[in-house]
Amino acid sequence: MTISSPVLARLKEAVGVKGFTEDPNEIAPHLVEWRSKYQGQTPLLLKPRTTEEVSAILAICNETATPIVPQGGNTGLVGGQIPFHGEVLLSLARLARIRRVDATDMSMIADAGVVLARVQEAASDAGCFFPLSLASEGSATIGGNLSTNAGGVNVLRYGSARALVLGVEVVLADGRVLDLLRTLRKDNTGYDLKQLFIGAEGTLGVITAAALRLFPKPTMHETAFLAVRDPAAAVALLHRLQNATGGLVSAFELISRQGLDFVLAHIPNTTSPLPAPSPWYVLTEVASAGELPLKDIVEKIIASAIEDGSVGDAVVASSDAQRRALWHLRESLSESQKFEGASIKHDIAVPVDRAPAFLAAGIAAVAKLVPGIRPVPFGHLGDGNIHFNFSVPKGGDNEAFLARWDEISHAVHDLVRDFGGSISAEHGLGVMKREEILRYKSETEMDVMRALKHTLDPKNILNPGKVV
Amino acid sequence: MTISSPVLARLKEAVGVKGFTEDPNEIAPHLVEWRSKYQGQTPLLLKPRTTEEVSAILAICNETATPIVPQGGNTGLVGGQIPFHGEVLLSLARLARIRRVDATDMSMIADAGVVLARVQEAASDAGCFFPLSLASEGSATIGGNLSTNAGGVNVLRYGSARALVLGVEVVLADGRVLDLLRTLRKDNTGYDLKQLFIGAEGTLGVITAAALRLFPKPTMHETAFLAVRDPAAAVALLHRLQNATGGLVSAFELISRQGLDFVLAHIPNTTSPLPAPSPWYVLTEVASAGELPLKDIVEKIIASAIEDGSVGDAVVASSDAQRRALWHLRESLSESQKFEGASIKHDIAVPVDRAPAFLAAGIAAVAKLVPGIRPVPFGHLGDGNIHFNFSVPKGGDNEAFLARWDEISHAVHDLVRDFGGSISAEHGLGVMKREEILRYKSETEMDVMRALKHTLDPKNILNPGKVV
Repeated sequence: MTISSPVLARLKEAVGVKGFTEDPNEIAPHLVEWRSKYQGQTPLLLKPRTTEEVSAILAICNETATPIVPQGGNTGLVGGQIPFHGEVLLSLARLARIRRVDATDMSMIADAGVVLARVQEAASDAGCFFPLSLASEGSATIGGNLSTNAGGVNVLRYGSARALVLGVEVVLADGRVLDLLRTLRKDNTGYDLKQLFIGAEGTLGVITAAALRLFPKPTMHETAFLAVRDPAAAVALLHRLQNATGGLVSAFELISRQGLDFVLAHIPNTTSPLPAPSPWYVLTEVASAGELPLKDIVEKIIASAIEDGSVGDAVVASSDAQRRALWHLRESLSESQKFEGASIKHDIAVPVDRAPAFLAAGIAAVAKLVPGIRPVPFGHLGDGNIHFNFSVPKGGDNEAFLARWDEISHAVHDLVRDFGGSISAEHGLGVMKREEILRYKSETEMDVMRALKHTLDPKNILNPGKVV
Repeated sequence: MTISSPVLARLKEAVGVKGFTEDPNEIAPHLVEWRSKYQGQTPLLLKPRTTEEVSAILAICNETATPIVPQGGNTGLVGGQIPFHGEVLLSLARLARIRRVDATDMSMIADAGVVLARVQEAASDAGCFFPLSLASEGSATIGGNLSTNAGGVNVLRYGSARALVLGVEVVLADGRVLDLLRTLRKDNTGYDLKQLFIGAEGTLGVITAAALRLFPKPTMHETAFLAVRDPAAAVALLHRLQNATGGLVSAFELISRQGLDFVLAHIPNTTSPLPAPSPWYVLTEVASAGELPLKDIVEKIIASAIEDGSVGDAVVASSDAQRRALWHLRESLSESQKFEGASIKHDIAVPVDRAPAFLAAGIAAVAKLVPGIRPVPFGHLGDGNIHFNFSVPKGGDNEAFLARWDEISHAVHDLVRDFGGSISAEHGLGVMKREEILRYKSETEMDVMRALKHTLDPKNILNPGKVV
């Protein structure tokens, strides 16, 4: 598609000379996602600084039926932030003001472009805690986090992004500003409109600011890395920890031997926390802001799990440096896979207690399709969310392997359906799974999604071709 | 309005002879809410037993543009469940099956008509906990709870009904069944449609079943009744308890001296838990399913609050019977007000730390309007949610007092707005606040609400005249 010069001129005028660029070099990094899976194109990158500028931009786009793609930190994994068809690109990165942090109200109001790590820091500086945490937190923006209902490592305890939002400010497709920036814990005055925009991947409106919920800052963390017999032993361990602490487990991550080996082979400054190898590992963290004897509880449970053989060996971090080193292993899993050739990835969820059976069936099904394929499943077992990833067989051809993506994904996703699961647990649909989802959603559900899209964006200018 | 005989005949046929009644005596209790504030009328009460029957009913209503009002346990306080204009009345009470309780998945699927107390019991029988709890739980249905995003005493720890829902089954206005009955903790496959129907008071679709989130059953409760110096001392106590326990306070209820006196005067088998009178009281509960030293922590904090004078006296329940007796005082507040003549009530929320200032300003403002008025504020201070109620001056005229409802409410609600609050924290809008809300919401917000209503219910058959 081509956007006419007069429209481009009006958009540029709306933001002023510092508010846009047409320089291909400056634009280039915004057009490709970090795994280089997606490549887009755009005639114009807009960089507004205020909600009013975003409002002016969308009013022009709506009037002229000009498609536009919002983008935060460009860390999405399903292509939702990429302008594939020459749309105007709207970067929210310069809306980067933290408007208010209120430790007594336990809330914060931040512009959409504030990087997640900065949100965490600002909360911490005020003596509070913002629990959303994920590998890309140094680049991802809070607006993108909300637009994708981001998950991460603390969902088990605190919920996904949706659960952390008290209010939003949204610019509607026609440029009107919908101000829902409330910090109330309870408000039943009509439809809860903010829910519409969370997880909608910028297709129903553009989030320009968010009111976020803060929590008491944990004062103690018990972080353990354990060799577990199998995924079923891991789930049993999770239940024991949750029962003993009354639900204070904040993270419970499954790691396979293959995954740990990749990290140890390719990521500098990593060492195995346990001497003897194990087919599976768990990284878990129990945390509290209170004055509770967590250390005793965690150590007692680990001791009894070692005694009954479900856990082979374990290390509990004894310093913050050690804690960070354990987390570094987990956070390097995705990166390390790059060094082992092509990979085919899935972001699935099943009910937690069915995850062990799913892992066994899924690995067997895929190995049957591609003998020698290397499974690297890992992730948020505590939520039933597995990053069900596979690396090309050792020495295999990358292109030939990637050509089988759809075949493998269909097999995996069909199995996910049979297990009552989700084919996109935390990454969203974007463009990657927009067609795939039609295989699994009812016509009625798709109809209602399309009706909402048509109601809120009748000219289909907002991130067209994504989600629905 | 009059609904034609052929339409009524088709509706009756859709549910069979046991599925409806036209008997005025059987219908009568469904037409009035428990405070007798609202009185409706209907030619036909439908009592379907299955989702398919609800589907058939709505298909006929939509085809014939016949308005219909869904009703659960008829415990709503804002008239949302009352057919004011002769609409057909749709009782969901016979959809009363608990379809599944899964203690390993920590989930339950229940029909809309299951009474909340039965949901709680079924969870408990499976060794789990469903935290939604409110005074009317013996009659209120889970479908009504979700449709109103019900709050109650455990919101502080577990959130409102919305936070407890994993999935819903909804019959759309045209009779199509939208099956979103998933129990997954993470699912980012498109718009989260269930959010639309939660808190929509039956105006966007009829919830016929819900997938609910269960929690570990608390094994210990520390329940304390405290005399506090003033609301500010109460908020300070809340913060101390939350900090010391890392957020394990499950309830934190404010009670005024006037409220306690009403209960002691009118409710049988009640006695004051503390010998000396106090202007304000707090009923709080700290709970955990784990093996934590909660008793020590709570008692230490109470001791230090007594020492610094912010708490005058306190009792910690030493038995389950004593715990229930303390809760009985709190749950009888609303009932006891009936014996003191007419009352004017508000269900407001403000940011927690502003609640003390709001209480002072609000009581002063209303006392200026009606000298001698008796304030009976109470409720969920931990959420900033106050039931800001007033009883007629002693010996005053009830009718003359009630005639000033709008005047008093406008004054209260304007103040709520100035405090950044909500004029309906947990009861919804119904018919009572449908006009009132126009004073406080932006035109843009109302427009989006109306657009959603039009999209999902184009013929305006679902609970017309409520919410929007």
